[in-house]
Amino acid sequence: MKKKNKMMFPKGFIASGTNAGISPGSKPDMAVFYSDRPCAAAAFFTANKVKAAPVTVSKKNVSDRGAQVIIANSGCANACTGGKGINDAEWMTEYAARKLKIKPSDILVASTGLIGSFLPMSKVKFGIRKLCDSVKKKESFPEKAAEAVMTTDRAMKIACEEFMLGESKVILWGAVKGAGMIQPKLATMLGFLLTDINISKKLLDKSLKRAIDKSFNLLTIDAQTSTNDTVFAMANGEAENAIIEKEGDDFRVWQEHLDMLTLRLSKMIAEDGEGATKFIEVRVVNAKTFNEARDVAKSIANSMLFKTAVYGGSANWGRVLCAVGNAGVGVNPGRIGVKFGDLRVARDGMAVSFPESRMKRILGKKELQVTVDLRMGSREASVYTCDLTQEYIKINADYN
Amino acid sequence: MKKKNKMMFPKGFIASGTNAGISPGSKPDMAVFYSDRPCAAAAFFTANKVKAAPVTVSKKNVSDRGAQVIIANSGCANACTGGKGINDAEWMTEYAARKLKIKPSDILVASTGLIGSFLPMSKVKFGIRKLCDSVKKKESFPEKAAEAVMTTDRAMKIACEEFMLGESKVILWGAVKGAGMIQPKLATMLGFLLTDINISKKLLDKSLKRAIDKSFNLLTIDAQTSTNDTVFAMANGEAENAIIEKEGDDFRVWQEHLDMLTLRLSKMIAEDGEGATKFIEVRVVNAKTFNEARDVAKSIANSMLFKTAVYGGSANWGRVLCAVGNAGVGVNPGRIGVKFGDLRVARDGMAVSFPESRMKRILGKKELQVTVDLRMGSREASVYTCDLTQEYIKINADYN
Repeated sequence: MKKKNKMMFPKGFIASGTNAGISPGSKPDMAVFYSDRPCAAAAFFTANKVKAAPVTVSKKNVSDRGAQVIIANSGCANACTGGKGINDAEWMTEYAARKLKIKPSDILVASTGLIGSFLPMSKVKFGIRKLCDSVKKKESFPEKAAEAVMTTDRAMKIACEEFMLGESKVILWGAVKGAGMIQPKLATMLGFLLTDINISKKLLDKSLKRAIDKSFNLLTIDAQTSTNDTVFAMANGEAENAIIEKEGDDFRVWQEHLDMLTLRLSKMIAEDGEGATKFIEVRVVNAKTFNEARDVAKSIANSMLFKTAVYGGSANWGRVLCAVGNAGVGVNPGRIGVKFGDLRVARDGMAVSFPESRMKRILGKKELQVTVDLRMGSREASVYTCDLTQEYIKINADYN
Repeated sequence: MKKKNKMMFPKGFIASGTNAGISPGSKPDMAVFYSDRPCAAAAFFTANKVKAAPVTVSKKNVSDRGAQVIIANSGCANACTGGKGINDAEWMTEYAARKLKIKPSDILVASTGLIGSFLPMSKVKFGIRKLCDSVKKKESFPEKAAEAVMTTDRAMKIACEEFMLGESKVILWGAVKGAGMIQPKLATMLGFLLTDINISKKLLDKSLKRAIDKSFNLLTIDAQTSTNDTVFAMANGEAENAIIEKEGDDFRVWQEHLDMLTLRLSKMIAEDGEGATKFIEVRVVNAKTFNEARDVAKSIANSMLFKTAVYGGSANWGRVLCAVGNAGVGVNPGRIGVKFGDLRVARDGMAVSFPESRMKRILGKKELQVTVDLRMGSREASVYTCDLTQEYIKINADYN
């Protein structure tokens, strides 16, 4: 996953970031994503019962016809902030609306950072003013926007798809922030997907839901669904393809590219999990249903014992089987097979001997695939995660 | 929780430990718990779908009238070992039965250690022979037995209750091993409860189930339910109280002492969690039901982010609320209050300012109580856990 590619960017969009002084340090901490015309917009939000103020406000604003702008900040989650938090998030939409001469209800907001503090509103105001100035001058720096939503992320996570629909070239661009407090349910961390495709809101909703279920919802860093998880998608139609209003060929092409992009972004998040030294794909095959395969894979991917063993460079399939048995899925332990990379370590629920030197090579790589064969059916699912290291503890213990 | 008390031990029981060479080092790694006459026996086992061989064998042997002996070992879990594992566990009962001249079906077995290896049977045979020799010589060293089942435990965990029923003095003694792979469901880690009370098997079953639900099942170290979790209780009747066969006053006295003992042992396990520097009680009050209170408390106690924050000495109630919202329980975030120790940090789901110096004192102690007030009803539950430290990662990554 390269980071320095020259990125395409969809027509009619401007993105930028600025330092408003909300987070310590000098990196950008506020972002704007702007379309020069109204977009079909879709969004999915956290399943956590404790929802941040920007989630509540964006949920309301995306439920009408569409949206045109997203304002996001890092450094403060505006979560557990009561009525004042809601007012602050609404004020952000109103102030940006005034500056950009559009309706507040066409503006979406997202925040990430520490839970339980109020937004520093004078800094937020300063930041929005600067971002709106960039928009008015048509200064677009998508990477600055992506950087602005990073918290403990070590790497910027952006990706791009380009494809033809008839005569029209369509561009889909996405940026996410990840790192910690990550096990999206129905929605995910912060994700911003911008595209110039011409598509109805209804089908944008549908395709985003499908893409999320096969990508961000298969991701876990630490089993914690955040209060602020949000994925936005905005489509402004400037690619001028014939509008997609039903599930025909064009919709399938779009869905395919959306799926690829969201999966790529999900893997980037797992790769950049807090303290991670390894990307891990847990693949469960021959399950009775996709949901059972996913639940078993998630139970393994959330096992602290499995993840610390991978960190320690050990093919501890016993911890894998322990996690399989805890998934709440009917399995037959005496049929289960386990592979680390392409090397079999268990068959029929029991040890298989393997050459230590080959295992050492497999566990020495930056990426590991663990495959669990349930031999119960024919469905499969992969879940993406990372190892659990002393650095994760350090990051989350010594953050003061 | 003192460890060096002179312990009472119930009449008619012998317990001992020996080094059979199964684990590295010279500490005892095999234990026997023996009663000089048949006992009413009860046992609860892991809810993990992947069950170790000794779980299968003991489940069968405890289902009949009673039991008289428990043989346990550390250093090898005899889990994921297929038909050979079952044969090995059964052979242990047969060999000990021959040595002690009782029926194999009156012998229970338990194992703990690495998953996926076969028991080294010549060492096991040597160990059983030595243990049976101790029994025949009536040499009882309960602390050696408790030490023999320890793995990564730092401290021996034994406790004792003594009480009168009419004219009869009753003694209840218990030993547990804990440390890692711990979130018992319906059963727990290894626990051995011995008593000379005179009680029917039916009521021993019932009282043990109740005690476990209020103790071991409220315990989590790392959200991993082991393949080997087992709690045994054996009652040989030598206290000579009038037999307890219904739920009258005597049963209530017994239940009360059993509850106290199992709760004390549970707290010892949390205190001695792998790498732990702090014991944490998460208390959820004013929930609609006990189960909802317990589920919310467990979600907090399993939050890696909450546990690392406690390790880092920070009263991060935002992570507490995030975990509350992830518990799958209907809550009203705007009503929730949080206290660390006796210091309020959140009210109505929002921050409350508090004196840093007092919080520093609270977080500097070895024990922490976090109280979450849901304001939804009147039921409460506590879950017992520990902080998550770099040492946990080290123990579970560098175990080779």
